[in-house]
Amino acid sequence: MALKLLGVSGSLRSNSSGLRALSLVLDAARELGAETRLLDLRVSSLPMYNPDAEPDEHVTRVLADVTWAEAFVLASPDYHGTMSGAMKNFLDYHWSEFSGKLFGYLCASHEKGVTAMEGMRLAVRQCYGWSLPYGVAINSEHDVDASGNIINPRLQSRLRMTARDMVVYGSLLHGQFTEDLAKNIPETFAARYG
Amino acid sequence: MALKLLGVSGSLRSNSSGLRALSLVLDAARELGAETRLLDLRVSSLPMYNPDAEPDEHVTRVLADVTWAEAFVLASPDYHGTMSGAMKNFLDYHWSEFSGKLFGYLCASHEKGVTAMEGMRLAVRQCYGWSLPYGVAINSEHDVDASGNIINPRLQSRLRMTARDMVVYGSLLHGQFTEDLAKNIPETFAARYG
Amino acid sequence: MALKLLGVSGSLRSNSSGLRALSLVLDAARELGAETRLLDLRVSSLPMYNPDAEPDEHVTRVLADVTWAEAFVLASPDYHGTMSGAMKNFLDYHWSEFSGKLFGYLCASHEKGVTAMEGMRLAVRQCYGWSLPYGVAINSEHDVDASGNIINPRLQSRLRMTARDMVVYGSLLHGQFTEDLAKNIPETFAARYG
Amino acid sequence: MALKLLGVSGSLRSNSSGLRALSLVLDAARELGAETRLLDLRVSSLPMYNPDAEPDEHVTRVLADVTWAEAFVLASPDYHGTMSGAMKNFLDYHWSEFSGKLFGYLCASHEKGVTAMEGMRLAVRQCYGWSLPYGVAINSEHDVDASGNIINPRLQSRLRMTARDMVVYGSLLHGQFTEDLAKNIPETFAARYG
Repeated sequence: MALKLLGVSGSLRSNSSGLRALSLVLDAARELGAETRLLDLRVSSLPMYNPDAEPDEHVTRVLADVTWAEAFVLASPDYHGTMSGAMKNFLDYHWSEFSGKLFGYLCASHEKGVTAMEGMRLAVRQCYGWSLPYGVAINSEHDVDASGNIINPRLQSRLRMTARDMVVYGSLLHGQFTEDLAKNIPETFAARYG
Repeated sequence: MALKLLGVSGSLRSNSSGLRALSLVLDAARELGAETRLLDLRVSSLPMYNPDAEPDEHVTRVLADVTWAEAFVLASPDYHGTMSGAMKNFLDYHWSEFSGKLFGYLCASHEKGVTAMEGMRLAVRQCYGWSLPYGVAINSEHDVDASGNIINPRLQSRLRMTARDMVVYGSLLHGQFTEDLAKNIPETFAARYG
Repeated sequence: MALKLLGVSGSLRSNSSGLRALSLVLDAARELGAETRLLDLRVSSLPMYNPDAEPDEHVTRVLADVTWAEAFVLASPDYHGTMSGAMKNFLDYHWSEFSGKLFGYLCASHEKGVTAMEGMRLAVRQCYGWSLPYGVAINSEHDVDASGNIINPRLQSRLRMTARDMVVYGSLLHGQFTEDLAKNIPETFAARYG
Repeated sequence: MALKLLGVSGSLRSNSSGLRALSLVLDAARELGAETRLLDLRVSSLPMYNPDAEPDEHVTRVLADVTWAEAFVLASPDYHGTMSGAMKNFLDYHWSEFSGKLFGYLCASHEKGVTAMEGMRLAVRQCYGWSLPYGVAINSEHDVDASGNIINPRLQSRLRMTARDMVVYGSLLHGQFTEDLAKNIPETFAARYG
């Protein structure tokens, strides 16, 4: 069965290299049989998270995508060594929807984006989500041409690798979690979500 | 000369225990001679950070407070082991304004907020800001009464300790940085900001 | 086929609660069909890692266990919010031996051991190892009796959960990695290790 | 009064670029009036930390240096994105000796050593130590010649900057802490150590 993969873009720039890279991952994932959706935080109009507030239509629409998804690729710029406020705000809204699902990471950074991706991994793990054991950094100075196209072949290859590993490992992990939930296996972390 | 201390509240809840704790720190700091301001992100209407956008009036007003400040106390809820999206979005807007200044941390958390405060320290250090070598966690279950008052005397004491150390160490650190800038000392990190 | 699971104990105390908890995980994993080994860093006589040194017999013996293993459970005390030097030193010796394998984490801590386990996850990920999306903290004050037995039933349950998830997910992840290696699949992270 | 500055070298290589860089920092600090000592973990024979063990002569000698010191520069290689086991083991032995003192960081890394230095900062902060708001990475491929001399002028400048900021800020912070201790000021973090 096709894996349902949601890409989330956490940059508000009109010409985001992270979004370009994310689109490449989603394209490659579809070629490998996945169903994909893109959540672009520039246009999702998600308000700042307030635990006391009733969800509005924007929150509800985002939640529908998140609930639909069986695996995620998060693309964030690196601001001060950490993910963007827009990406963090997206994560703040969700909790049990992330559990048992695999996450991959892209980061547009002047460095390697290591700490920004570590911060995303931490937040995801607190929700019992899995993380791919690597991430991909995009350096807009070297990897992207004037029109925003990704021109570094080594980066293109790492993005296709991400797509492949997301589809294969994401399906494995989600399949096991779903089976454990269905069978009411008591001694697994899925049991918290039954 | 009085230290200019800005408190930043990163929760959008109407009854935030972090904001209560922050107000206590600011009150104590004023008793110790500091000038204080409060930046409440519930009412600052800061849009989501977009590096391409022109600053609007809300961004400009926040920037005025940040530029005014010589030291900061950041109060954030702990969402998924990391600071709130609202706090992260505030940090995304600023860079050289933080350099050489001292930051203290409060965190409303069901745990101890350790990783959320580590994330704030990381972002601040990337901007060459100093961090107080401890933080204060507020647990709304044990530390706060039904009206939102902080009733744990040990917590009250830690908040006053934070105020005192912010005023004393914040003045020392900012004074040295300002002097180095004024004298154009070449081999210090202040030289990047001259 | 039985999963080969290596438990690594990173405390040098004679009566380590982390080692007790680790033994419980290994016992439960054997009941679930795994083969297990225990690497006790008190008795392994691993010298401090020196990249220039020739491996001695102790290093060689530890490497044999690491190479044998298809999944790992690391148990470390929490010293200053980070793993013990003994555990870090063990990790320093290995690299590609960890890739594609699943790691679980136990931490003896007065707090929750969150940052100590995050540090282990980071080191493992740098080697392309997977991490279980949760860890287990042991608090020797509440969880252990005078003879060192683990008496907290909730903790016992979490340790059995860890064993179960290590066996099931560890087998899945290692099986896929091994298959990818055998088939020389180019666009997966296993390709680095072919 | 002269600041007492201890450099700690956490590599066991015979030709460590981190140790070269550390020596440069200590030389520059002496020119600025500091007293310095070097703790080279290759020759200190510190056993693996065991909380149950009585301190031997090596532990006692290291403790004497640590107690003497009023500020520290830690130089560690980057192994798996984290400090070396040798450095971590050194840190495990000490606690209140670090409180109120300033730490600077050097890291020999193929990357920028950001996460390895973050790990050192975390351990230091858990002991109530201060951290300089930047660190210096040494890349042995670009920064060092065949004889191990540091040849990158930009790196040399950053090392002198570290020496200068350690001496100036280290003296300020340690002076305040010592004064607070002497006067028994109750509401400061020094009060824990009186």
